[in-house]
Parts: sequence; structure tokens; C-alpha cells
Amino acid sequence: MTNNITKLFNIKYPIIQGGMVWCSGWELASAVSNAGGLGLIGAGSMYPDILKEHIQKTQKATNKPYGVNLPLLYPQIDDHIKIILEEKVPIVFTSAGNPKKYTALLKENGITVVHVIANLKFALKCVEAGVDAIVAEGFEAGGHNGHEETTTMALIPNIRSAVNIPLIAAGGIGSGQAMLAAMTLGADGVQVGSRFAASTESSAHESFKQLILDAKDGDTKLSLKELGPVRLLKNEFFEQVQNAYANNATKEELASLLGKGRAKKGMFEGDLIEGELEIGQVSSSINNILSSKEIIEEMIIDYNHALKSLNSL
Amino acid sequence: MTNNITKLFNIKYPIIQGGMVWCSGWELASAVSNAGGLGLIGAGSMYPDILKEHIQKTQKATNKPYGVNLPLLYPQIDDHIKIILEEKVPIVFTSAGNPKKYTALLKENGITVVHVIANLKFALKCVEAGVDAIVAEGFEAGGHNGHEETTTMALIPNIRSAVNIPLIAAGGIGSGQAMLAAMTLGADGVQVGSRFAASTESSAHESFKQLILDAKDGDTKLSLKELGPVRLLKNEFFEQVQNAYANNATKEELASLLGKGRAKKGMFEGDLIEGELEIGQVSSSINNILSSKEIIEEMIIDYNHALKSLNSL
Repeated sequence: MTNNITKLFNIKYPIIQGGMVWCSGWELASAVSNAGGLGLIGAGSMYPDILKEHIQKTQKATNKPYGVNLPLLYPQIDDHIKIILEEKVPIVFTSAGNPKKYTALLKENGITVVHVIANLKFALKCVEAGVDAIVAEGFEAGGHNGHEETTTMALIPNIRSAVNIPLIAAGGIGSGQAMLAAMTLGADGVQVGSRFAASTESSAHESFKQLILDAKDGDTKLSLKELGPVRLLKNEFFEQVQNAYANNATKEELASLLGKGRAKKGMFEGDLIEGELEIGQVSSSINNILSSKEIIEEMIIDYNHALKSLNSL
Repeated sequence: MTNNITKLFNIKYPIIQGGMVWCSGWELASAVSNAGGLGLIGAGSMYPDILKEHIQKTQKATNKPYGVNLPLLYPQIDDHIKIILEEKVPIVFTSAGNPKKYTALLKENGITVVHVIANLKFALKCVEAGVDAIVAEGFEAGGHNGHEETTTMALIPNIRSAVNIPLIAAGGIGSGQAMLAAMTLGADGVQVGSRFAASTESSAHESFKQLILDAKDGDTKLSLKELGPVRLLKNEFFEQVQNAYANNATKEELASLLGKGRAKKGMFEGDLIEGELEIGQVSSSINNILSSKEIIEEMIIDYNHALKSLNSL
């Protein structure tokens, strides 16, 4: 199968690995790209020099297309952009900001640009900005998320009916069945985060990967909405946040409680008590650590099997 | 097509109309059943004598199977049950309570029993209680909802992998495409609420139906979580609730603000300012008022069309 996503990125399967802080360095990005998907380096947790190193290592590890996910809210964003241009990164996924800010510059430099949104208003902004594709991310997704709390099931058809450019669904997608469901809702491809966070090549700490496998139904929650909603696995730090809410904490007090480096502490260093653990609701269905290649192969088999087992009415 | 849902209820299509307060009386239930789905009388907003009247009118209006949705939290529940037994209602969907409480009694009287859940723990309780099928309802659904906030996309595969009895997906499903997506995720049938709330035969006030058509992305929100989470359309009453939260209102103050009869005031009497307006996220994709027959026919056409347009990988 080829479609507008496989053609846009020149990849075999319309499966994009989400750019995740502390999980998606060069090992994961290159493994996913080598397996026929699109691997993304998550620049969100990288200083510019670290990003440069990961781009160069990815280039050595794969001759397939790859990309960088760039949250637009970081202070050193211009340095990140400079490195992306210098290193001739072919594909950039921007998120957490206005798509009108960098799309033109990136596209003038021959880069394919995708922007991540969680509502219709920003999807329309993306079209105006001239992006090549949109990622629409639902409420069930891990990590940073939209204020509207629209789920993948409700979001994708709504965006599909309003925009004609290639559409990638994200949030709750960790299997071939869910991928097929997303395509049914109108997506042209899927972005998969949590499932790859629990892969062999993920740079997440092994203790955090294990906790993803243990996660049950209801073990994540969208939290810290005043600072920017983020879906967290419930742990001691999450309880501290809940207690702060119970004590009517101000936004400043919440920011102070969060502090700096909590995501690194939890997801990269494996402090499961005091760390911030970002993962999606689909973690409840993840039960093993596989290589990226195995994950993609399993998704394709399950996708095709699910498609064959559907009957017309 | 026949499957375990169409066989269980002896209906043509595995489409169940959700039992909704103030929307689903005998007109809607009988219209849906006559069109090949399963119509449910929503007992949640009915005193026992009113329920009796709606059951008798449904029996006159259709010779097809129909059911009653019975929230187990109402004070007059035993009177409701008595009427259901007397009137020989063939199918009962219970919700908002423990499935172990009434399932045996209903089944001893030859009634097919389905229970509505929003998490795995209660799904397993349902199996133990001996229900005939489960409705698993996601976070995007309108009205009363689970505390775990698990979306349909994440919930259905998780429940499917753990239980073998017939599974009905609810939440975010108002089209044939979404129905196919839910079946792909492992559901055997779907329960559709909001789309039927905006049908010709819905007993909702015309002003409320119009507001459903106007609803955009992000216009609903899960609120009043302390009292039992409920998804509401944002209006003046919703803003009053938000202000109460901003002023650190206690649970008692929230209950007092909600008061009694707000859902009736909004959804049935059409007070769009002071009323409580329960609707799902999928309202953003509902753009016309159709008859129940037209809704079901459109869903079937769109389901089959979506299925044909999917390609293997």
C-alpha cells in the first residue's frame, strides 16, 4: 500500500514514531526508520549540541528518511532550527506553538513540515501556514496535550471533515487494530508514542519501561492543566500534585512543585517516585518490550488481520 | 451480517440507541427498534408511572425488541424494577451501580441484562454477575461518565482482551465510520447517544437539539467530578460551576449549585442558560436533525463505504 503519507515521507508504512522527551534519541529514530516507519528524534529534551549529535548518529545508522520533533516553546529554539538546517534534516514535526512561526523558513530550505494540533482552530492555522501534514492528537495521548480534551475518536473525523491535507492520528494508538480504527476515522497515517517508549531502542530508563508494562486502566491522568496539560502515570509525584490541588495551590506553587528536570529524573534516570512519568492511556494494553522492528511487524500483521475479519452490514 | 449482538437482541443491526435522560422516551426507542437497531427507554428521568406509560406506548409502537436503560442510583429503583417485570420488558441495560445487585433477579425473569461500565474492574464484575453483554463507555461520551477518564480508543481493546462476552462500545460514536472503528477495536456493536439526541424522535427540546448542531470542537467538558463526572455543553450554568471551582467550592456547595431538575430544565424545557446540557464530544460532528431511520441508514451506508475504502498494508 502507498498513500499520501507514505509518499510524503517516502516510507513503507504510514507509521510515525512520536518524538518523545527522554525516550526517542537516535537509537529509536533510526530503528523505526530502518523498519519501514518514520523515526523522529525528540528534540524536546535535548540541548542544541545534543540534538546535533543525535542527528548525526541517526544519519549514520539509517539511510532511510527520518525527522526531528521540535516543540516550539523552548528558549533555544533558534539554535535548534540552525542545527536542523545545517544538518539538512529532511522532515520536521513542530509542536506546542504557532505553526505560522517557522513553517515558511523550514519549507524554503526544502524541509517537509508537519505540525501537531489538538483542535480544529489550530488545524486550520496549519493549513494557512502551508504545512505538508497535520498530526491530530487526542486526549488519551501521553505527555503534553490539548486544553479541549477531545479524544482521538471525536477529533479525527472532525479535523478530517475540515482539512484536505494529509492527516496523522495520534493518541491511543499502539496496535494494528487501533491503527486500522484511526484510518477508518479518516486518518492517512498514525503516530505512535507509548508503544515505542516501551521498545528495546527507547532511551527511557528500564525501570520506567517496566512500569509502562505494569500500568493498568486508569493509571494515567491528565494533570497540571494550569501549566499546560500533561498526561502522567500516577506515582508519588502525581500524588503531591493532587495534594497541592486539594490545598488550592496557585499556578506559581504548582510550577514550583514541578520544578525543573522532573521528566528527566523519572523517565531517563528511573526515579519512579519523585520523577514526572509521561505516558498515554494505551499503556494499559502494553505488556512486553519489543524491538521497534517487532512492534511495526506486529502492527502490520494485526492491521491486516483486523481488516480481514471485518464484515459489511 | 449477524453477530453475537444482533443474535442476542434479535435485531438487524448491532446499533443500540443509548438510554438518555430527557431524550429517549417511547417515540425514540420505538423508532430506533423499528429501523433495525435496539431502542432503549431512558428510565433515568422517569418516575415509575411515567416509565410504565413509556413502556406501554413503546409496545404499541413496535413489535421489535426494545429495552429500558435503568440507572441503579435512583431512590425508586425497586418500583422501576417491579414495573419492568410486570410489563415483561425483554431487555434491560443497567448503569451507575453494581451489576451484582439486580442481574440475577432480572435474568430469573427471562430478561436479557446488559451493564454499562467505564473500567476493567467493573467489566470483570459484570462477568461474575452473569450479565449477557457489557457496554464499555469512553470519556468522550455525554452525560454521566467514569472517574478513570479512559477514552473509547484505549478502553475497548483493554476490555476486549479481558472478557469474552459480547461487548458494545459507547462514546464518540455517531457515524458509520466511528462504528467501524469501534468494531475494529474489538466491539461487537455500538451504543449511540448524542446522534439520537439530535433526531426527530428525540424528546429533547428543539432549542437544545439546535445547540447540539451548533456545538464545536471543545464545547463540552467533563465537569462536577466530585458529584459524579458528567460531560456538559458549556453554557452559563457550566460557567457558574467553573466559577465555583475557582472559588474552591466544597462538594456540598457544588451539589447546592446543581440543585434539582437542572437537566430537565435544560434538555427538556429548553432553558439553555440555566439548564444542565448533557451531550458527548461527537456533537462537534453532528450537523443536522434526521429521523432515527435516516440516522441508522446513513450509518450503515457509511460503515460499508468506509470498509470498502480500507486497504491492506
